[in-house]
This record gives sequence, structure tokens and C-alpha cells, in this order.
Amino acid sequence: MPRERSGVFYLWAEVVMRMRDEEYMRLALELAGRARGRTSPNPLVGCVIVKDGEIIGEGYHQKAGTPHAEVHALREAGERAAGADVYVTLEPCSHYGRTPPCADALIAAGVRRVVAAMTDPNPLVAGRGLARLREAGIQVEVGLLEKEARKLNEGWLYYISRKMPFVIWKYAMTLDGKTATRTGDSRWISSEQSRLLVHQLRNEVDGILVGSGTVLADDPALTTRLPEGGRDAVRIVVDSHGRTPPGAQVVRLAQISAAPTLIATTEQSSVTWRQQMQADGVEVLVLPEQAGRVDLTALLQELARRGLVNLLLESGGELAWSMLAAGLIQKVYAFIAPKLAGGLMAPTPLQGAGIERMAAAITMQHGEWRQIGPDFLYIGYPAREVK
Amino acid sequence: MPRERSGVFYLWAEVVMRMRDEEYMRLALELAGRARGRTSPNPLVGCVIVKDGEIIGEGYHQKAGTPHAEVHALREAGERAAGADVYVTLEPCSHYGRTPPCADALIAAGVRRVVAAMTDPNPLVAGRGLARLREAGIQVEVGLLEKEARKLNEGWLYYISRKMPFVIWKYAMTLDGKTATRTGDSRWISSEQSRLLVHQLRNEVDGILVGSGTVLADDPALTTRLPEGGRDAVRIVVDSHGRTPPGAQVVRLAQISAAPTLIATTEQSSVTWRQQMQADGVEVLVLPEQAGRVDLTALLQELARRGLVNLLLESGGELAWSMLAAGLIQKVYAFIAPKLAGGLMAPTPLQGAGIERMAAAITMQHGEWRQIGPDFLYIGYPAREVK
Repeated sequence: MPRERSGVFYLWAEVVMRMRDEEYMRLALELAGRARGRTSPNPLVGCVIVKDGEIIGEGYHQKAGTPHAEVHALREAGERAAGADVYVTLEPCSHYGRTPPCADALIAAGVRRVVAAMTDPNPLVAGRGLARLREAGIQVEVGLLEKEARKLNEGWLYYISRKMPFVIWKYAMTLDGKTATRTGDSRWISSEQSRLLVHQLRNEVDGILVGSGTVLADDPALTTRLPEGGRDAVRIVVDSHGRTPPGAQVVRLAQISAAPTLIATTEQSSVTWRQQMQADGVEVLVLPEQAGRVDLTALLQELARRGLVNLLLESGGELAWSMLAAGLIQKVYAFIAPKLAGGLMAPTPLQGAGIERMAAAITMQHGEWRQIGPDFLYIGYPAREVK
Repeated sequence: MPRERSGVFYLWAEVVMRMRDEEYMRLALELAGRARGRTSPNPLVGCVIVKDGEIIGEGYHQKAGTPHAEVHALREAGERAAGADVYVTLEPCSHYGRTPPCADALIAAGVRRVVAAMTDPNPLVAGRGLARLREAGIQVEVGLLEKEARKLNEGWLYYISRKMPFVIWKYAMTLDGKTATRTGDSRWISSEQSRLLVHQLRNEVDGILVGSGTVLADDPALTTRLPEGGRDAVRIVVDSHGRTPPGAQVVRLAQISAAPTLIATTEQSSVTWRQQMQADGVEVLVLPEQAGRVDLTALLQELARRGLVNLLLESGGELAWSMLAAGLIQKVYAFIAPKLAGGLMAPTPLQGAGIERMAAAITMQHGEWRQIGPDFLYIGYPAREVK
């Protein structure tokens, strides 16, 4: 190998540098993901600071109202941040929120270069963070591992642009499409491994949505039960007519779990029932009606206002159809267990009116199949709303 | 490497020989498979004859009543078969059927060694073929690639031991478990690739079973439509009350397709209707009743008597449940299309009474998942009959 630094050498050096950039950004994404389910209504953000090939600072946003990822990483780097390269999964903020702008902190620290995976679509930022860095003479690059960064915050990106929660519909069914037997027995369809994954999902969302039918049929706790603990999500029951009994687990848990229980109802439920629920620590939301039931769009708008970004829909087939038909489901987790139940009267995951022509079926996009123990899990995105 | 033939050399030679044995047996299995759907009530059998490392004869059983695999291969080998090694996927027969015993033909040809993948469970053979070869001083080995050989003839092995056809239940459903919309529209649930695979299945079975409900709802032709042609299987309609209309495709095809149409009915159907069906070229089987409908076990016994080994069940959920509940389904092909249909009233693949407790679900065994275009296909075997 010639020792002169030829064009090939510089090309090679460039390739190595890009590879390292990617490696640091992957680390930043990994750091960001550690706070899944903890940052709403803020996004997940991770940051890595590198100088002379050495990582001198790492950080991630842990909780809304606490310092941003960049601040944690800059604190760790200290004075060495001067002249360093910064890898951040989202454009640094430029506005005064509950914390000062990160762009200013990076400028003050004298960093040399900032690599951001994507710009911040939040109208309060939207490129202004990067512009401020450039004006200060900092080298700025944007778009490295952007696809991965968008996937990491897919729920928040939907929330920030639509002011609506990102709803993940989860169900488990048998190989013949049943979510319970004809007698309503559903314990258990899927394997222990699949159920563990559901608890991981619960740990990562802000709220869990069910209908009063599910409460009456299964009396679920909707808590997060993981070997390592986890935290409960807000329990939200859609109960247009006030059928939830005082002894239901979701009611009992309102005073035990760290997360509240909300019941969304209409004027059709009795005042006595509402007072009973409130006395038991449940928050009762009386919402407008849509075809005699809770207006689901109004409910989701209210939940978004409260900063709930990601919701897990664990309802039966009727509420699932109402949600899908209203265009309120963004992602699907379908667990399929290799067993057969049969039954003309056994429930299925999606009921309601349904479509009329098979050609009008709601197709799924970007789907992937995963084996989870003996079960199969399909993850995908409904391509469009119901015609 | 030392040139003396050490112990290691002989071990190595042995390993190479076993590898070659396997290679020849795989070829014999591949040859056997070429006649899928053509040999019933006989099994699929392939044969390869090798001398001095050269393949001198190949053959497979092509159709019941025609020469066996060994005869084809011996014909090709001619006099060179003397001293050769024979690889055959099933024990050579020892009895006079429609053709003379293959064991005798191998002895007469003077072969040195016979390697069989498995013994023939047919009580007319059952080891006697191999015994006869051994008595004639031929070296006999059995069990090479036995698992593959059993899989190749799984239907026939069931048929020969139970005197009942091996039933493969095939269905296509949406991701939410529907086989049609609420209006009964089912065209199309699965992709073109999946439907091609169904036609390949039809090409490999002896009969296709549906109920009169499917005939009335979908009016299927049940023909084999493959780019390369294929042949139609016998169409069998379970029609307890004589509801199949004279204009149905299955009736029309009775006089067009090379395969007949059978309708299984009970004394409840009208004599006029039966006469009409017969006049249209359909064979009408009047069978005993079981709970007011065609006794399915009696039907399958009759089909077995007629030499139908492999059946494809393409029925709706009611007949599928009756078949499963009677323990008459041995294998399942479930196509799952990534789309959603919804509908409380939309049909599902398995209806009927169904099980009562989820813990009593019929579990599937030895399952595998395959991606077929955009769809997923689960293939498995029901572990047990309904409790």
C-alpha cells in the first residue's frame, strides 16, 4: 500500500467516516428507545457526542418536563464538547418550552458538527433549530438513518401532525378467526410468549382502550405485568350507556394503580352510575354522541389534548369495527394461534357491519410476520379508511 | 496426505458412499413425486439403479395398473442391472397384483444391493418383499430418508392403514378471520399466487369435497386450472336435502370434465331431483343419515372403497366443522390474506357448534408458515379429535 494520501485514500477515509457516523446514530436511536412510553407528549430523542473517535457524551430524553437528550449528553461531555461532533435523532429544538432551546446549548458548547436524523415537524421547531446552528457556523447534516428515526417516533409523528393519538389495535385469534369460544371463553388463545409481548406493548403506550363489552365479558385488569416491572398505562373504557359495574377491575384499579381509569360515556348513562364511578376514583368523561354511542373522534381528540400519544386498542369486534370505520386505527398487531375453536356464534376480532364487497376490503401495508413461540404475529398498517 | 489406505481412508470412503446413497434416494423421491395425484389407490414410488457410480436406470410408478417403478428402471438398465445397486422409495412388492412381484424381477435381474426408504405397510407386502430379496442373497438396507418417504406418501399411508381417505382442509380467510363479506362475496380473498397453489393442490388430490351451501353461494367449477394444464379431481358434493340446481357448474362439468361429479345425499332428497341429476350425468349416492344429514364417515368409507386416497375439502364453515368434529380432517392449509373485512354476520372458516372452553381448542401440530405472495399460508395437522 502506498503511503501517499491518494484520491483512493480520501474516498476510503470518507467511507469509514460515514460508517462511523451511522454507528453513532444507531447508538443515539438505541438510547432514545430506552424511554419508550415515558416521554409523551414529547418524542423519543437520543444524543451521542464524539470527539477524536471517542464517545464523550450520551443522553436521551427521559420524561416530558425534564432535560432534553442533548442537555444530558453535553453535561457528560463537559468542556470537551468544544469542537466535537453531535449525533441526535431529531432536530435540536429552537424554542423555549419547559426547558431552554437545545440549539443554543450546542452553540454555547462550541460543537463543530451536528448530525440530525430528521427535522422536527413540530411547527414550533420545523427547521429553525438547524438554521440557528448553521448561522452560528456549525456544520449541519440531516437525514442519516431518517427511516429508522421516523419508525421510532411513528406514533408521535402522527400525533404532532393530526393532533390525534396513534392507535395500535391488538388482537389474538385462533387459526379459524375466533377471539373466544361460543360461550365467550378466551383464556388463553395465544401463548405465554405472545402475552408477554402484549405486556411490553402496554408498557410502551400511554393508554389502553376497551369497550364496556370487554369489561363485562372478561373483566380485564389492563395492567402492565412484566418480569422487570413496567408501568401501567391509562385505562380508558368506552361505555356509552354506563354498564361498567362498580366491582370491575378497571374501577378497583383506579385507586391502586399509578395510572388513572377514564370512562367515556354519553348523556344516556345515569347520573347515579356516574357519581358511583367518580366516588370510586374513576374519571368520567361525558362526550357527544355519534349514532347513539360515544363519538370516538371526540374521545380521541380529548385524549390527544391530554397528551396521550400512543393508544393500544384491546377491544372486542364491535368497538374495533367502529374505530376502523372511523379511520381511527393506524397500526395492527394480530396474534394468530395455531388452534381451532369453531362456532357459528363465536366472536371474531372485527364485527360490526363490515364491508359489502371483498374488493373493498381494507388492505394492510408494510406488513411483516414474526413467529412468537408457537403463534404468528402479523404487524401492519391499514392502507386506507373504510369505503 | 499419505497414499496408504488407512482406517481414516475407509471411514472417509464410507462417508462418501452414504452421501451418494442419499443423493440417489433423493433422486428416487423426486421421480416418485412426479406422479402426484396419478397413482391412487397405489402409492408414489421412485427407483434409481446405479452401477460403478453411474445411473443406469430410473423409473417411477405412473398410474395404477401400469408397471411399478422398479420395472421401469430395470427396463432402462437392461442387462447392466446385474451386480447393480437399486434405490427405491418403498419396499418392492412381493405379491401378484395387476403386475408381477417386483422383488422377483430384481432377483431375476441379478442386482447386488437394494436400498429401500421404508417397508411397505400394505398387509399384502409388509416386509415380505425385502425378505424375499434377502433370501436370494441380495444385500438389503432399509430406512434411508424414511421421514421424507413417509411425508411423500402421507395420504396413502393413512389410507392403507385406516381404509379412509386422507382429507386436506383448505380455506382462505382475511386477517380478521372472514371467508366472505356479510353479503357472501368472497372473490377474491387470497392472491393470485395463493390461488395457483390451490390449483396445484387440486391437481394432486383424487377428489374435492364441498357442501351444497358452497355450490349455492359460489357455484364453483372445482376444476384444475394450471398454466401447464393438469387434470380435474372427482367433484363430490355433500347435499343431504337435494338442493344442487341443475344449472350448477359441478353438474354441467359432469359431462365435460374427464372427472365425474358425485353427489352424496340422503333419503330426504326428492326422487325427481335425483333423476334430474342422473340425467345430467351426475352420480347420485344415497347414504345413511347422521343427525339428519349425510353420514360423513359412511361417505368417506365409500370414497375409500372407490380408491380415492387424497381428498381436498373446500367447503364452508358448517361442513368443515362436521368433518373436523367427526375426526375426518387430517391436514390443514390455511391461507391468510392481509386485509380486513369486518362484519358480525360475515362467515368464518369453521362454524357449527364449536368448542365450549378455549382450553379444549383443537391444537395443530407440525405446523409451518410460508409466505405466498402477499398472503401467509399455515400448513399443519390437527393434533386430536374434538373433545
